[in-house]
Amino acid sequence: MISVREAKALICERCKPLIPRLIPLVEAGGFTLAEAHYAPIDQPPFDQSAMDGYAFAFSAWDGFSPLAVVGEVQAGTFYTGHPGPQEALRIFTGAALPSGMDTVVIQEKVSLSGDKINITDTQIKRGSNVRLRASQTRARDIALEAGCKLTPAAVAFLAGFGYDRVSVYPSPCIAIINTGKELTPPGQKLSPGTIFESNSYSLRAALQEWGVKPCAVEMVDDQETVIIEAIRRHLDKDIIILTGGVSVGDYDFVTSALESCGVTKVFHKVRQKPGKPLYFGYFQDTLVFGLPGNPASVLTCFYEYITEALSILTQRKCSQRMSLPLAADYIKKPGLTWFMKGQIQGDEVRILDDQESYKLNSFAQADCIIELDEEKEFFKKSDLVTIRKI
Amino acid sequence: MISVREAKALICERCKPLIPRLIPLVEAGGFTLAEAHYAPIDQPPFDQSAMDGYAFAFSAWDGFSPLAVVGEVQAGTFYTGHPGPQEALRIFTGAALPSGMDTVVIQEKVSLSGDKINITDTQIKRGSNVRLRASQTRARDIALEAGCKLTPAAVAFLAGFGYDRVSVYPSPCIAIINTGKELTPPGQKLSPGTIFESNSYSLRAALQEWGVKPCAVEMVDDQETVIIEAIRRHLDKDIIILTGGVSVGDYDFVTSALESCGVTKVFHKVRQKPGKPLYFGYFQDTLVFGLPGNPASVLTCFYEYITEALSILTQRKCSQRMSLPLAADYIKKPGLTWFMKGQIQGDEVRILDDQESYKLNSFAQADCIIELDEEKEFFKKSDLVTIRKI
Repeated sequence: MISVREAKALICERCKPLIPRLIPLVEAGGFTLAEAHYAPIDQPPFDQSAMDGYAFAFSAWDGFSPLAVVGEVQAGTFYTGHPGPQEALRIFTGAALPSGMDTVVIQEKVSLSGDKINITDTQIKRGSNVRLRASQTRARDIALEAGCKLTPAAVAFLAGFGYDRVSVYPSPCIAIINTGKELTPPGQKLSPGTIFESNSYSLRAALQEWGVKPCAVEMVDDQETVIIEAIRRHLDKDIIILTGGVSVGDYDFVTSALESCGVTKVFHKVRQKPGKPLYFGYFQDTLVFGLPGNPASVLTCFYEYITEALSILTQRKCSQRMSLPLAADYIKKPGLTWFMKGQIQGDEVRILDDQESYKLNSFAQADCIIELDEEKEFFKKSDLVTIRKI
Repeated sequence: MISVREAKALICERCKPLIPRLIPLVEAGGFTLAEAHYAPIDQPPFDQSAMDGYAFAFSAWDGFSPLAVVGEVQAGTFYTGHPGPQEALRIFTGAALPSGMDTVVIQEKVSLSGDKINITDTQIKRGSNVRLRASQTRARDIALEAGCKLTPAAVAFLAGFGYDRVSVYPSPCIAIINTGKELTPPGQKLSPGTIFESNSYSLRAALQEWGVKPCAVEMVDDQETVIIEAIRRHLDKDIIILTGGVSVGDYDFVTSALESCGVTKVFHKVRQKPGKPLYFGYFQDTLVFGLPGNPASVLTCFYEYITEALSILTQRKCSQRMSLPLAADYIKKPGLTWFMKGQIQGDEVRILDDQESYKLNSFAQADCIIELDEEKEFFKKSDLVTIRKI
């Protein structure tokens, strides 16, 4: 049996970023850029009025004479004439400054007399109210570096350069295989001795928080041949997650089925509670997680181990880990790391009741997982513990 | 012109939770429960072995005699026989205890001789290694209260009771209408005087963080009749978001178009930068936001105002607001609330460069919006400011 730290290190060792893929920008929110993206154009692409007003050539103006308004330029249009030195153009926010003009006086700071304007803005100077071409980004400069998270602003930033596809680390293709003769799908009638299957539900919802929809979800009986067939169907995926059947009972066929399928075991069993029988292996580039079937074990192992793998494959950040003081004393046995369902209350963290791995009521109320160190037995109120927000 | 605080209060006054809807549990991650959900069954539904071992009737056992193993019960099966007092059954984790049996000895704590076991567990007592029926939840008790967020654990918790559909506050149906003659869709060729449309991209990505896919996204010209037609098409939606055309220029038709459509104005213009021309109104239960068209204004108004509305409609939490000390001095003009693109650095927050509303480069790097109070002019390093994580 290995420690939690060793298990995580062994998983991270096998993980590498997925091969970048070009996806539509409109679907790219939340992904991480796999390559630096350059500006193909200046941004703004032309000198632009920042306000509604009148454009003119500052250096050709004597500073007091009225200017003749000889035309108009609306945003999205392009004025092709060549106005003279004492001439101005009506211009609107976002419109391109005509050639030769460099300054805009806002409409509130002119007085109109017929077709002429008198500029009453005493502060005006060359370039006033103009957004210069390339004042945000110059063509061929880097717009966003590789590794940048595509937030809504980053997505729009790239759209502004005309990108409609971007190179990102894609979502992994994940198969979920729930094993167990006792599992009945929710919505059906429960027959004696069976329980409702819930692990595919927690895994789907947890993957959804990573923007991942599993490629396949199967429920299979505790029969070795059936499990082998299910595993074989998914050896082309990036990740296989199995639940249940990973212990050493007479009906625990997952580890032997994985062996039959040629999956190389990296570790089986971790000094932790819940989730002691956790299995990790690989087949070529496919990562295989065998999670013990109890609902709380499944979710704990997902948050503590599978998210670490997802973080490397997709180059996204895991949920935030931090240290907080415990709200009350707690005693545990030494020898295993305990992952406890917790709730942040003000500046402290409280260990919830009902921590057994078959129960989900406390997990359903939890907003964090608290990690209690393997060797430590006595935890005092205010002792700092590591938590992972969920 | 009203203050930021007044604008938010006016929006919140018009918002109410959406009518609850029954949706498949498998899609319910992230939603908020609209009704309390009761346990329709005991959980666990039967007395269950917590380990692989041997089940027997503790009170019928004399404490030292070997027990005859007369059968086996695997998880998911049901033993219908009635074993006698000196008899035991092979049992596996999760299997139902046969009638009359109440205790399990784990397989590591027995010695086998033929078909009999000797129990070597000196600590064993009545109920050892058994998960009692209803020990997590009793049938008809409340499983989850109304208002509970459907985390992965909460989803699985409800699946465990057999729920396959749940009553939640649904996602709002949102139409995005981007106005502006100057807009060219990314991926196309930019003609003179035009820019790439990016606001639908930022809004789509920002809505995606709320699990919302807009029902409609349109790009329309700066023509009043065209804008009126677009608005009319979407007056049945929960929210209409317009971008651009909301100021007072000759080509700003959004407010007059909204009036023509019978939309009641609640406010137009807020003492803030960026986003001063922000408009908010309603038509029956449809909320209408008119956002100024500059990319940074659109996103700032989304985060500061539309998320407040989404939070009420869907009963989900907005992104976290908190106070952090400024990393450096800053001077602003009084009279407007300034929303600045910021970055959290350690325990401080830094105001980024390039804050102009037409620029997105700083927003693309930002992880928070910093709110600088309307009346305050001089901000010193270490002054506490309100930030909103994005």
